[in-house]
Amino acid sequence: MIEADFEALDRLRSQRPLIHCISNIVTAADCANLLLAAGGRPVMAQEPAEMAEIAGAAQGCVLNTGTPDDGKFLACRLAGQAALAAGRPVVLDPVGAGASSYRCQKLTQLLEEVRPTLIRANLAEVQALLCLASRELGVDSPEPARRDQAPALAGELARRLGCLVLLSGESDCVTDGRRAALIEGGSGWMSRITGAGCMLSVLTGAFLAVSEDFLPAAAAAAAFWKVCGQQARQSAQAAGGGTGSFHTALFDAASLLGPQTLRQQSRISWLTLN
Amino acid sequence: MIEADFEALDRLRSQRPLIHCISNIVTAADCANLLLAAGGRPVMAQEPAEMAEIAGAAQGCVLNTGTPDDGKFLACRLAGQAALAAGRPVVLDPVGAGASSYRCQKLTQLLEEVRPTLIRANLAEVQALLCLASRELGVDSPEPARRDQAPALAGELARRLGCLVLLSGESDCVTDGRRAALIEGGSGWMSRITGAGCMLSVLTGAFLAVSEDFLPAAAAAAAFWKVCGQQARQSAQAAGGGTGSFHTALFDAASLLGPQTLRQQSRISWLTLN
Amino acid sequence: MIEADFEALDRLRSQRPLIHCISNIVTAADCANLLLAAGGRPVMAQEPAEMAEIAGAAQGCVLNTGTPDDGKFLACRLAGQAALAAGRPVVLDPVGAGASSYRCQKLTQLLEEVRPTLIRANLAEVQALLCLASRELGVDSPEPARRDQAPALAGELARRLGCLVLLSGESDCVTDGRRAALIEGGSGWMSRITGAGCMLSVLTGAFLAVSEDFLPAAAAAAAFWKVCGQQARQSAQAAGGGTGSFHTALFDAASLLGPQTLRQQSRISWLTLN
Repeated sequence: MIEADFEALDRLRSQRPLIHCISNIVTAADCANLLLAAGGRPVMAQEPAEMAEIAGAAQGCVLNTGTPDDGKFLACRLAGQAALAAGRPVVLDPVGAGASSYRCQKLTQLLEEVRPTLIRANLAEVQALLCLASRELGVDSPEPARRDQAPALAGELARRLGCLVLLSGESDCVTDGRRAALIEGGSGWMSRITGAGCMLSVLTGAFLAVSEDFLPAAAAAAAFWKVCGQQARQSAQAAGGGTGSFHTALFDAASLLGPQTLRQQSRISWLTLN
Repeated sequence: MIEADFEALDRLRSQRPLIHCISNIVTAADCANLLLAAGGRPVMAQEPAEMAEIAGAAQGCVLNTGTPDDGKFLACRLAGQAALAAGRPVVLDPVGAGASSYRCQKLTQLLEEVRPTLIRANLAEVQALLCLASRELGVDSPEPARRDQAPALAGELARRLGCLVLLSGESDCVTDGRRAALIEGGSGWMSRITGAGCMLSVLTGAFLAVSEDFLPAAAAAAAFWKVCGQQARQSAQAAGGGTGSFHTALFDAASLLGPQTLRQQSRISWLTLN
Repeated sequence: MIEADFEALDRLRSQRPLIHCISNIVTAADCANLLLAAGGRPVMAQEPAEMAEIAGAAQGCVLNTGTPDDGKFLACRLAGQAALAAGRPVVLDPVGAGASSYRCQKLTQLLEEVRPTLIRANLAEVQALLCLASRELGVDSPEPARRDQAPALAGELARRLGCLVLLSGESDCVTDGRRAALIEGGSGWMSRITGAGCMLSVLTGAFLAVSEDFLPAAAAAAAFWKVCGQQARQSAQAAGGGTGSFHTALFDAASLLGPQTLRQQSRISWLTLN
């Protein structure tokens, strides 16, 4: 019987892993602050010339392709390869996959060069990656998938690429293509701040960095973020606040949330895919 | 009789327009969060290779030339042209116009390539753009204008460039060169956080994106931001806070402010320019 | 008898110096907001073509080499040289010195081209700069220094480079190589948000920009930040908050802290280095 690895949070706080993040100009600060709040130590760097050293020295690597350019994709390749060569988990956050031919082409290339440990994406991005994986791109834009297709699509992408997929949204689904955890909870306000997905990606990188069994660790990371969302919403609303207070409260929650409360407030169910 | 289009706020929240922002490393996160708080959906991207697709898919486009370099100015040209070709409003925020010969030269070129729907700038930037427009640059630096000259200068720039000008400051003035709205209120603390101008620019882009008559929509956007400033100042001071609390409270206000309160608390007067 | 120059805070608020910051994608917004909260006016710019004009027009210059690339190091050289030529203080924040061969090589070169007025760094970075200064790099990685060696190492670096060194950490040490101020206080939570060091660097740049005697001014800047840290921790904990509330409260403290409270709550001792 599989279960989320809530103890990963304890290890995160005692081991304080160094997480190398290739980030973007929108969410770099929030990602670094969330890593620190949760217990990790961020190193944000993206000059290609230093990728091998920095990724090699870190315990985990998170490649975020938001606000992309050629230099960033090169940095992602070099960092990802160095991290994998050092036996470190690599999380890919393909921000806006499908939003432009440029991103499609560059992500296709990156996925040939670096096989991530886990892809954290939303439904539209998972769909776009599936099209890329099956080389359907340019033929027809797919119909937007329905929310209830998320586990099936995440599973399909996981099997195609041979990696974990964490598809986040109103509820999250993390899967290795055979088994899937559904994580409920959180807050709809998560979509009213920028970077909720990027932050989940770095958080997942930190949880994987202190774990050997990645699927249960990723489920715990997703659950951690859902509980933070819930607590932040309650806290912001109790104070009559809006999305600014919610944003601040997310970091409060992440810095104060302990493994026991995490376990109690998590809502995870497991299923087997087809 | 002209009046601010407060209903634009309703349309913003129901239509949730996608706003393409070329941003800068200082205020990108705040701009994205403010758009989300107010009701829009931001897409921040600035790789030239994807500008046409991304700007073309969005309902509005905001070009911010802060922390500039050649790549950003190229991105602004491509995005601005694609947005205009698709019939979308384009807002230009010429951050620090006049601060260097580099910015003067690049902004002159950009204004020849892209005729924005609206320019959002402060008094010094409007003065600098007027010098550029009249090719006076390099002759003499102008005397800094007095605050009470703002409507006349904004009007002059609007007529020269054939676009709307939103000159923001202690009070705001938005004009098409003939008619002008003066928007009072707000808080002096707006100048004690970074990005208040950048945020007003993206907000204005969002209001224009859901409107057909741009002058009344821009007046409503400016009024929205003034009311947010007032409310945030009150909220921060009631809690004994400083500029950190004020910053957070701005997003609270933007996410909670409805059209009725906006209308009640707005202080707008209209005048006709010479 | 030497003493911290607490009056620098008054001058900062009355003179409102323009501080040119070369920043990074992680902490640019926080640095700009902290400068504004404390009383300065930030201009963030890093296009090499405009460095001479912008640095020359500012009253102080802060070079932060986080998330570096070749363009940023070029910008640092041009801005640093222009500021020094104009008689302005230059603060260098060598983020992650020693983290990669790339940074080591580029920082060595920068220190040959620009002699900063003050280097603000943590213990590991000071150690790395000492290795670079003595060209020991590549031979052996040094043992990490113990915390109680900080004043001696800061003094050694100050004498080698002929500049002030502000080594920050649990306690701060600022020295010209002969005299040193130890600044106690602050909060351990400073290390649980990103950018506490970057923010101290821009703050120090602002204090130097309104001062003629730099060592006492730098001691006052460090003390200012320690007192902000203390007050923010108290405020966040009183409200049951975590690192998110602490982050917001830092800006509150910086915007509200006056010279008298600064003087009363500062814990500074002076010593003479052998």
